[in-house]
Amino acid sequence: METRTDISSLGEFGLIEHLTKNIEFSNASSILGVGDDAAVIDHFGKQTVITTDMLVEGIHFDLMYTPLKHLGYKSVVVNLSDIYAMNASPTQITISIALSNRFSVEALEEFYEGVYAACEAYQVDLIGGDTTSSKSGFVISITAVGEVAPDQFVQRSTAQKGDLLCVSGDLGAAFLGLTLLERERKIYLENPKIQPDLENEQYIVGRLLKPEARKDIIAFLTVNGIRPTAMMDISDGLSSEILHICKKSELGCVLYEEKIPIHEDSRQAAFKFGLDPTACALSGGEDYELLFTIPQADYDKLVLNEQISVVGYMTEPEAGAHIITKGGNKFKITAQGWNAFKEP
Amino acid sequence: METRTDISSLGEFGLIEHLTKNIEFSNASSILGVGDDAAVIDHFGKQTVITTDMLVEGIHFDLMYTPLKHLGYKSVVVNLSDIYAMNASPTQITISIALSNRFSVEALEEFYEGVYAACEAYQVDLIGGDTTSSKSGFVISITAVGEVAPDQFVQRSTAQKGDLLCVSGDLGAAFLGLTLLERERKIYLENPKIQPDLENEQYIVGRLLKPEARKDIIAFLTVNGIRPTAMMDISDGLSSEILHICKKSELGCVLYEEKIPIHEDSRQAAFKFGLDPTACALSGGEDYELLFTIPQADYDKLVLNEQISVVGYMTEPEAGAHIITKGGNKFKITAQGWNAFKEP
Repeated sequence: METRTDISSLGEFGLIEHLTKNIEFSNASSILGVGDDAAVIDHFGKQTVITTDMLVEGIHFDLMYTPLKHLGYKSVVVNLSDIYAMNASPTQITISIALSNRFSVEALEEFYEGVYAACEAYQVDLIGGDTTSSKSGFVISITAVGEVAPDQFVQRSTAQKGDLLCVSGDLGAAFLGLTLLERERKIYLENPKIQPDLENEQYIVGRLLKPEARKDIIAFLTVNGIRPTAMMDISDGLSSEILHICKKSELGCVLYEEKIPIHEDSRQAAFKFGLDPTACALSGGEDYELLFTIPQADYDKLVLNEQISVVGYMTEPEAGAHIITKGGNKFKITAQGWNAFKEP
Repeated sequence: METRTDISSLGEFGLIEHLTKNIEFSNASSILGVGDDAAVIDHFGKQTVITTDMLVEGIHFDLMYTPLKHLGYKSVVVNLSDIYAMNASPTQITISIALSNRFSVEALEEFYEGVYAACEAYQVDLIGGDTTSSKSGFVISITAVGEVAPDQFVQRSTAQKGDLLCVSGDLGAAFLGLTLLERERKIYLENPKIQPDLENEQYIVGRLLKPEARKDIIAFLTVNGIRPTAMMDISDGLSSEILHICKKSELGCVLYEEKIPIHEDSRQAAFKFGLDPTACALSGGEDYELLFTIPQADYDKLVLNEQISVVGYMTEPEAGAHIITKGGNKFKITAQGWNAFKEP
């Protein structure tokens, strides 16, 4: 029989103690962690980078098809992705959660297993947080702290005209994974006897449920002496993020449809669902890949990295932001990224 | 007619831009703020202190009697209180909120007015955050960053035997304010024609709805060369916090009931509600006063400060934690502080 321990039996402090008792620090800068009013971080002449993200049940995730361990892992990763997107290295996180009594201690342990797995994978220290009750859904708020050598951080606003527009990995898969799981959820709700058909869909489902932050790309850029002129992570879809860089850098751009990296499994899945793979890459979200610009002179330094695609270039602002389709047509890029406040 | 702008009409980015457009930094350490993947903080040979707190509608606040501006102010203050409790100075905050469409842009502006008022009052910079949708309640998560000279932070675990136990301000008022507002809420729900009777209750209501963090006490201790041996803020009631210090410092203590600072208005309110004022101070929460220990040798340095009360002293651990009542009886101190997971 599965054990089910009521959270109220431990109380808030007992619960935090229980969930954090095995923490070991990876970073010398982590001076003091969980258990006091605040945590303490040391610096050694670096700058601190800080970011925060909130994930809300029913908006950002559906517990019906999101294993809690994956949710814990992903919650950390999406924050680390923002730190890498600053050209910085993540070092610490704090995590606050609100949850209702319907969760057991065991369920929360599973969630924390994922949190610790991500901390381990990215060598990040959990140094604090808050655990509280909620009348309804599960809410997760994570703040990630990172470090960067003075003034080596990279903003969105500093791309230059003529710079090459680059993307890591491939795009659209997470959105297709979501489309698949939402479809299976509906089928299941209509007929609980039908088991979900996820065969051959590991790639797109994995990209949704267990994304990774591109630590490897930042390491590659550093080792090869490439400092992006502008950078951000792709969480709301490529078109929305490209428009951010254009707007903040006061530039236009040209994007080539044929250059947008799309995984073969994503392409197959898109066709199966009657969707355009390019549209999934442009407007789907949650890829957590990096979008960055580099001077043309740096092209030779990254051309051999198969994990990086050059997808276009930056232009003067008057030219606007356009995509050239495979058929040679030119369209204005419009933001159709995810809007948390859009009516469903 | 009151204006009501739908949040969805601005979208997530428009909303953030709208709410953060007037930010001006107070701290030289704030290098980069809202608008990129992460914020950047510089250090100049100090240590960074970081804390996070989550406030959930229906658990931590009731919008029926909590004005949004006060809620914004309080959300910031409760986090700053944790930074001061480390003997550090707050410098930056990030703020994440989840809210449903029933909120208008104007309502959110009111909330942010309170956030900015607190930033202004405590000279803290808002440097980032996340704004997202919620299916039900309003959830606020704030992370505060502060700085402290290397190794000058004060933990809970470092009190010494014989140290004096000190408390700032007065206790129990916020709990009494909550009791009053809950009573008025019930009366109102039963008969909406009856207007709330809050006359002569400004003090206790104010302590609940607009608490302040004790920046002044930290400044006083610094100026007078007093470094507490241990310190924490009182958010869950005096008894619960004293037990934290005892447990973490591996000590016992003696607390004198007659020394516990209680405001005359709190005493009156307690009698009106048939409550014991001492019980309100011991077990009520949300006072956001400081609890700290000092060596006996430092007594003369703070005896003239009317905002600080010496309420007891630390003993060997075997003696346990006890309170001596006004009648001369000795009782074990038990934690009856607020537990977010306790069944109501």
